[in-house]
Amino acid sequence: MTHRWPIRVYYEDTDLAGIVYYANYLRFIERARSEWLREMGFDQAAMKEAGTVFAVRRIEADYLAPARFDDLLTAETTLAAATPARLTLDQQVRRGEALLFRAAVTVVALGPAGRPVRLPAGLASLPNPARDG
Amino acid sequence: MTHRWPIRVYYEDTDLAGIVYYANYLRFIERARSEWLREMGFDQAAMKEAGTVFAVRRIEADYLAPARFDDLLTAETTLAAATPARLTLDQQVRRGEALLFRAAVTVVALGPAGRPVRLPAGLASLPNPARDG
Amino acid sequence: MTHRWPIRVYYEDTDLAGIVYYANYLRFIERARSEWLREMGFDQAAMKEAGTVFAVRRIEADYLAPARFDDLLTAETTLAAATPARLTLDQQVRRGEALLFRAAVTVVALGPAGRPVRLPAGLASLPNPARDG
Amino acid sequence: MTHRWPIRVYYEDTDLAGIVYYANYLRFIERARSEWLREMGFDQAAMKEAGTVFAVRRIEADYLAPARFDDLLTAETTLAAATPARLTLDQQVRRGEALLFRAAVTVVALGPAGRPVRLPAGLASLPNPARDG
Repeated sequence: MTHRWPIRVYYEDTDLAGIVYYANYLRFIERARSEWLREMGFDQAAMKEAGTVFAVRRIEADYLAPARFDDLLTAETTLAAATPARLTLDQQVRRGEALLFRAAVTVVALGPAGRPVRLPAGLASLPNPARDG
Repeated sequence: MTHRWPIRVYYEDTDLAGIVYYANYLRFIERARSEWLREMGFDQAAMKEAGTVFAVRRIEADYLAPARFDDLLTAETTLAAATPARLTLDQQVRRGEALLFRAAVTVVALGPAGRPVRLPAGLASLPNPARDG
Repeated sequence: MTHRWPIRVYYEDTDLAGIVYYANYLRFIERARSEWLREMGFDQAAMKEAGTVFAVRRIEADYLAPARFDDLLTAETTLAAATPARLTLDQQVRRGEALLFRAAVTVVALGPAGRPVRLPAGLASLPNPARDG
Repeated sequence: MTHRWPIRVYYEDTDLAGIVYYANYLRFIERARSEWLREMGFDQAAMKEAGTVFAVRRIEADYLAPARFDDLLTAETTLAAATPARLTLDQQVRRGEALLFRAAVTVVALGPAGRPVRLPAGLASLPNPARDG
């Protein structure tokens, strides 16, 4: 039930400390969320055409160890909880087995007016650890 | 005791949803932390030369309302707690009075080997709400 | 006739080589173009609402010397040539007198369908070295 | 002799115009250069440890058509010319057959003091259209 996506660290991702700049982990896990959605058959470009986009409402993130230039990382995405209105994802970035970054990410859907709308059918009914045990 | 720093929203900060991309708030508040340190007399470039850099250990962030292209925002930085090893900052991004983004950010200092070191003298002894009430 | 805008170099702008990442100079000079337009009274947010955005068609850029963390730079913008359809700007990034980066940037305006449209009134009639000598 | 690398367009790459932000093409083609070097056996992380990094000296870039969110692009890298001190690469970004972006990129190598050094053995002796016809 965990989706995995490879992330290579390029020059653009690093800062003068020689490690990945802290904001860029949020770019990495957004790529992983997009690929997780794609794998489940969601077409975000078509959703956007129809006026719906996903938005992050809350993040709790721990930076545990640094990633470095040229590292090949894995971004892991696991559904932690879902309601009709919001998803919480557990997203981890690893180098091999080593856990470098972990975030709990709460996502909602926004409609054409920028107001929260129900999540697309299919997302709220995903197997849901918080509900299904 | 709250430091304020203006942030203009440019094309680079927005995404196709027409609002500021969520990772970019972390860039905004890092600029504000750098300017807060500068105002207190810390020279991060000299610190880096001497082998010390700041690193973020944890972020809890709430995205409350979107910022848009060309907005003139204010990033506010307030010390929430300090120990010899770590600072916690309350950082808020506002448009006028409206609160758009708020984060609790835990910062440590890393020495030449990338290991945690004591915070620079002066930082741990800042007026400290958690300690001084 | 040269517009100047200050740019501070933050962590986000650097890479592991300890200098400003090459793509970020394009962010710097876009900020400078936006501020140059603002100073002349153009409201890009209102233009965007009305369906017009600026787009870059061509860049010739020379990287002459590196900018470093915490540098306070100046981005200079000078109109080099204008037609009803396109502007060419000379944009320079300096640290003090030292020239670090220089680009010739060709800009067009795009209408609601993403097609090129005439530049907003006022831009094509700016004092124009290529035409006015 | 042309190296190809896939690039997916994510939220982070777009701006409020709904297309890829112009500076981000430079991130795309830097990824492609890094993968081109990797394929030829160059280890940029080891080079960096040894004090050598690549730096871009000049770019001539044409923006021909926009890339959009969720596009799957191909970044193509072809050696155009080489001397002991510098490479010129022809780098193109395509969506299917359509050419969206094209740049001539001049790259040098910098040594520990940030001064230009000879390119790594193997690079200057690559098959070289400008020299070999």
